[in-house]
Amino acid sequence: MPGVIITDEKSVKTEVPGPVSKAAAAKLGRVFDGRAVHFVVDYAKSHDNYIVDVDGNTYLDVYSQIASIPVGYNNQTLIEAAKSPEMISALVNRPALGNFPAQDWVALLSDGLLRVAPKGLDKIFTAQSGSEANELAYKAAFMLYQRRKRGEGVEWTQEEIASCLKNQAPGSPDLSILSFKNSFHGRGFGSLSTTRSKAVHKLDIPAFKWPQADFPQLRYPLDQYQAENNAEEQRCLQQVETIITSWHCPVAGCIIEPIQSEGGDNHASPAFFQGLREITKKHGVMLIADEVQTGFGATGKFWGHEHWQLSNPPDMVTFSKKAQTAGYYFGNDALVPDKAYRQFNTWIGDPARVVLSNAVISEILNNNLVEQCAKVGDKLYGALEQLSSRFPDHIQNLRGKGQGTYIAFDTADPAALVGKMRRMGVNIGTCGTKTVRLRPMLIFTEQHVPMFVDTLEKALQI
Amino acid sequence: MPGVIITDEKSVKTEVPGPVSKAAAAKLGRVFDGRAVHFVVDYAKSHDNYIVDVDGNTYLDVYSQIASIPVGYNNQTLIEAAKSPEMISALVNRPALGNFPAQDWVALLSDGLLRVAPKGLDKIFTAQSGSEANELAYKAAFMLYQRRKRGEGVEWTQEEIASCLKNQAPGSPDLSILSFKNSFHGRGFGSLSTTRSKAVHKLDIPAFKWPQADFPQLRYPLDQYQAENNAEEQRCLQQVETIITSWHCPVAGCIIEPIQSEGGDNHASPAFFQGLREITKKHGVMLIADEVQTGFGATGKFWGHEHWQLSNPPDMVTFSKKAQTAGYYFGNDALVPDKAYRQFNTWIGDPARVVLSNAVISEILNNNLVEQCAKVGDKLYGALEQLSSRFPDHIQNLRGKGQGTYIAFDTADPAALVGKMRRMGVNIGTCGTKTVRLRPMLIFTEQHVPMFVDTLEKALQI
Repeated sequence: MPGVIITDEKSVKTEVPGPVSKAAAAKLGRVFDGRAVHFVVDYAKSHDNYIVDVDGNTYLDVYSQIASIPVGYNNQTLIEAAKSPEMISALVNRPALGNFPAQDWVALLSDGLLRVAPKGLDKIFTAQSGSEANELAYKAAFMLYQRRKRGEGVEWTQEEIASCLKNQAPGSPDLSILSFKNSFHGRGFGSLSTTRSKAVHKLDIPAFKWPQADFPQLRYPLDQYQAENNAEEQRCLQQVETIITSWHCPVAGCIIEPIQSEGGDNHASPAFFQGLREITKKHGVMLIADEVQTGFGATGKFWGHEHWQLSNPPDMVTFSKKAQTAGYYFGNDALVPDKAYRQFNTWIGDPARVVLSNAVISEILNNNLVEQCAKVGDKLYGALEQLSSRFPDHIQNLRGKGQGTYIAFDTADPAALVGKMRRMGVNIGTCGTKTVRLRPMLIFTEQHVPMFVDTLEKALQI
Repeated sequence: MPGVIITDEKSVKTEVPGPVSKAAAAKLGRVFDGRAVHFVVDYAKSHDNYIVDVDGNTYLDVYSQIASIPVGYNNQTLIEAAKSPEMISALVNRPALGNFPAQDWVALLSDGLLRVAPKGLDKIFTAQSGSEANELAYKAAFMLYQRRKRGEGVEWTQEEIASCLKNQAPGSPDLSILSFKNSFHGRGFGSLSTTRSKAVHKLDIPAFKWPQADFPQLRYPLDQYQAENNAEEQRCLQQVETIITSWHCPVAGCIIEPIQSEGGDNHASPAFFQGLREITKKHGVMLIADEVQTGFGATGKFWGHEHWQLSNPPDMVTFSKKAQTAGYYFGNDALVPDKAYRQFNTWIGDPARVVLSNAVISEILNNNLVEQCAKVGDKLYGALEQLSSRFPDHIQNLRGKGQGTYIAFDTADPAALVGKMRRMGVNIGTCGTKTVRLRPMLIFTEQHVPMFVDTLEKALQI
């Protein structure tokens, strides 16, 4: 909103969490796991970039519900969508989408999620979470792998049919999905087998014996370590090819985040991703771009993988979080399984959330929020770069240049810094083991940049 | 609604699907898998027990979106909930529930889902689908198993932490969930490893090497085969115990449906379930009742497992479908993992769907719909019993006596019969390989019984 002067509303009057939040979290804890509650929220009073807690504290929110609020609290366009007749019907008449879709379902897809489909991918399967979206993509990859192996049009054998019901080969084949060290792809049993970021996600849960490759560990600042970083990326790519050609079972798919997010905001260059596309294509491995956190504009492009500048698109692109719904895009018709009911479940997503997602998309496109995010991100990065030169011990490995507001830096004690920031009215999060990550909404403007940076500076001084 | 005369509105003027449905499904098929579409729906015109398609055909719906519509299309109580300020806020300000819950979240749970919590289970974890709910329950069972093994308060070892990131033991242990032949528990990689009903669900997808036990195959009519059926149930229980004590890896949980639904509406006696509770308790195996399809009243009790008359409740009860949201209930505090963030994901369900679920619960309780369903079910069963005596070759193994409207029967060609019924204005579904299942909504009344039964009779005559 050019010309609008934005007031700095952040104001914290209590400890964080305050006494009312603490009491509410304790009450919640009797029936629900409330141990991860940062504070309890008054969403009626929250608006735009500001989140208000039940103690009356107001925070500039650059964490955005773990990177999932796209266009601000109580956004007017979203409120209108929420009140629309199509939303009411989607809420009260929830369909089994595969069997009894509503007459407006195809238009809802075409006018919304497909309007922003990644280049080369013109089909969609809807889901309810990023974790589910990734698992559906894995299933599509596995079914395609076996279909190619079986031969087009070849019927399933009785042995396949009988053995799969016993979880045995050949019906339940030993196939794998390759992921990268420090990746996060969700918490279902399949998606968790590809997640590699933190033990707290994985410990004690059975996992498939699927492979992981090293993700490039780049040195910063990038312009000083170009040769080393190139070599590191080549090393990782070679490892990928070695794994694909030598793992104990076939690798049907490879999943990667454009920026490893939960794992510490780890970046790689377009050349790395181009190399990965080339290797996976060469070996018939489905390349899945996990855009659950990077999608919908925050990197300064609508999809994070647009930064890769590929000549061939990824085979599937998954989304969730800021989309406010979930699913995967694809282009290859062979990714539609050979029979109906193979990729299927009762609800196949939630049309109510798709209605809301379409409002998010309108809001983003009508207000050029992706372009704005790119511009604001440059300002923000510049300001942080200056700050890091003044506090080199506290702001290290600053990353996200040219990646919109998807910015992060390392610091000795991220939890302590985030705690200080919260007490000073900025709600911000960590990732990996030593990283503070910025995840403002797409409506974060240039005017918010000094509000954020000044607070960070003060927090570094105490 | 006693005293209200209900009109028989069913009316089919075209083939099914009609030309408009066919064209719409073909259009949808270009961007979405539309091959399982029965017909495309005009939800604005659908109401109560009647679903209207885009060709203007009206069907009495006893399939109810794969058993997931609880209280009718365009239910007024649900419409009011959909328009409420709390719904608008839940839609537009979707929280990361574990970190930033709304101040009304605890009340939403206490006044709704916890109001109908199964006896002995006073805590809840929310989810978005039955499949996710089951997997979360499996994870809780696995974490508890390892916690007991490790010893209370014993810290994770470095070896556990490092190995789990590689999907290797001891961090990623080899543990299993026991399920039953012909069961359906969902389509995620963990839940699918416990699903055993149809190859179309499982073929080509890697599965965990988890065990299955026989589910009792009862002979009908039950009163004529009491001794055989008791022996069959004892045989299956012995098999369960053998598996628990001899499987190649520990069995941490056992999941069972009160009535096996997708697998063919297979029933077992209370004695069987009591025996299962006893065996699982003896061996420290978490018993999970999968009430995704049986929960929320359709068996004539709010929860299907109430029919089991247990002295100790199941350890976890999962729900979805007619709840219009999903999750699991539990009682034992030790099922809350030892640390925060272990049972966690970004959204942890959807408060918007919980708001709607609470309206469903109010509607059920305020109108005594569970009691009504039990009564209507008895009438319906009686009428079908009479019909089966007249058409013994076409209605076989009638089951669901005393189980509300959760009634099913076997027939030679269920798909053909369902096709005929649709063309005569009754939307009904199949399950297993030879079964027609009834899944009317809870607002199906005694007046609908003859509308349904007369159509079935006519369909059997042509």
